[in-house]
Amino acid sequence: MRTVGIIGLGLIGGSMALDLRSRGFADTVLGVESNSVNACAAEKIGLVDAVVPFDECIVRSDIIIVAIPVDSAIRTVKLILDRFQEGADPPSSASLRDRITANAPEGVSAPSWKDKIVIDVCSTKEQIAKATKYHPARKQYVATHPMAGTEYSGPWAAQPGLFDGRACIFADAEESSPKAVKTVGELYDTLNMRPIHMGSAAHDVHTAYVSHISHVTSFALALTVLEKEKDEKHIFDLASGGFSSTVRLAKSSADMWVPILTENRDNVLRVMDTYLEKMKEFRDAVDRMDEDRIRTLIAEANRIKKIIR
Amino acid sequence: MRTVGIIGLGLIGGSMALDLRSRGFADTVLGVESNSVNACAAEKIGLVDAVVPFDECIVRSDIIIVAIPVDSAIRTVKLILDRFQEGADPPSSASLRDRITANAPEGVSAPSWKDKIVIDVCSTKEQIAKATKYHPARKQYVATHPMAGTEYSGPWAAQPGLFDGRACIFADAEESSPKAVKTVGELYDTLNMRPIHMGSAAHDVHTAYVSHISHVTSFALALTVLEKEKDEKHIFDLASGGFSSTVRLAKSSADMWVPILTENRDNVLRVMDTYLEKMKEFRDAVDRMDEDRIRTLIAEANRIKKIIR
Repeated sequence: MRTVGIIGLGLIGGSMALDLRSRGFADTVLGVESNSVNACAAEKIGLVDAVVPFDECIVRSDIIIVAIPVDSAIRTVKLILDRFQEGADPPSSASLRDRITANAPEGVSAPSWKDKIVIDVCSTKEQIAKATKYHPARKQYVATHPMAGTEYSGPWAAQPGLFDGRACIFADAEESSPKAVKTVGELYDTLNMRPIHMGSAAHDVHTAYVSHISHVTSFALALTVLEKEKDEKHIFDLASGGFSSTVRLAKSSADMWVPILTENRDNVLRVMDTYLEKMKEFRDAVDRMDEDRIRTLIAEANRIKKIIR
Repeated sequence: MRTVGIIGLGLIGGSMALDLRSRGFADTVLGVESNSVNACAAEKIGLVDAVVPFDECIVRSDIIIVAIPVDSAIRTVKLILDRFQEGADPPSSASLRDRITANAPEGVSAPSWKDKIVIDVCSTKEQIAKATKYHPARKQYVATHPMAGTEYSGPWAAQPGLFDGRACIFADAEESSPKAVKTVGELYDTLNMRPIHMGSAAHDVHTAYVSHISHVTSFALALTVLEKEKDEKHIFDLASGGFSSTVRLAKSSADMWVPILTENRDNVLRVMDTYLEKMKEFRDAVDRMDEDRIRTLIAEANRIKKIIR
């Protein structure tokens, strides 16, 4: 009998809920969702067995997945680790003890506090690593980044199989208990993800260089096309598959991306500056009608073919 | 009995060959391919009924589709219009007359020179329009741009259904004979394309603003990631679906894109400059950690959702 609690029933949380239950990793999936419309939708769609209050989710779940934007996730993971600590070592204050233990429904045996695990799934890892590094319950936290998603958000965007065959990064796994890492490994194995281990600082460098810059270039492309091409009908008519795929990420939500870009500011700035240089170089070659230079730049860019199929 | 000749058996020419024959528009599809490896492949794959010399293709075909990069296409369309002219009004020189008429195989009745049509499928239209504007056989030429494709090239990239549901631009159709436009309309109708009419100059502005800029941003993204992320394994591991779709166009061939970017230099430069401004604005907001500004920029970019689904 394993209960998984998911804080945040959006694209990632909702998609995890679907596969973890249907593939037998969890017997029960509980959800916590602060947006009442999304909470209602998640229950109606059947993403989770029940949407419950935060405290009840912490008491009843063996594994808690925090799937909300990175700024809120930092606060929430710390709060959950506090609860783990308080539950394992109950405080003398009767009211706090009551709050911690009274939320388990009648007849449901809550898992041991010391065996509970919390996971985050954020796209930046260094700030959350710093914020939790010295927490007494740190070993019960596993920092992960499942590298999957679409440009859509909310419970309606959840889909089965979203993670199949993708990479999942485990950041600073040595800070977590081996038992917790093993269980979380099984969780991602259920989602058919390839585990990759790296430090949280390295994670933020590499994701800025590969993933975050793609979003920024796509936002800038959308802004450019919307400014230059005032007539939306022309955009619709002339959007071949090429434009659609290049601009796809520009549909991504500000709630998710503002925190990522600010949390990972230094790395993102570094790669944006290189991007601006490359774009400028390309522009100048076109300006000079320097066919040889344009050809060389395109041939260099084509090398990506060998890496990404 | 209709014969279609296709000059250039790459992604576009090859895909047209497949659908025009299988859907009954052409009884016979002839191909011309200067690259001998590609010619051999096109015959083996069965894209065309026969790969033939250029002159034979012109003599035997009712409709000739020029599907080669835009710089060569300009020369080739002019040459074909010259032949139409020479065929309709045979020159006194015996050797030239022989060259024109002698290429029809025994027993094959060649279509009338005055009824033949030539089409190009280039991504820029203004230069080719200028180059052909005063040609005596101009009415037999229909300038089109089927807005479909993939990042792959060559006969191996050809696929059935490539054009289904996409837009096809007819540029300066008033310069062609109504009969030719009607026949070419039927051709693209067979490919399930939506016809859109515009002038060649407007075409080049709008495609720069929507399509050409997407390719340039994608080339620059590939160059950036390849420079910043020296370890190809990291690129492979961290390439989520988002990066893959944004960088997809960076696999496009220099042979096709160098001529497009130089032919359409002024429009491309204009949109690149706007893009550089937008990127710089985004960069500065991240630099200042100006969350409100980043949020506003992303929300503006999100408007693309309403146009491109």
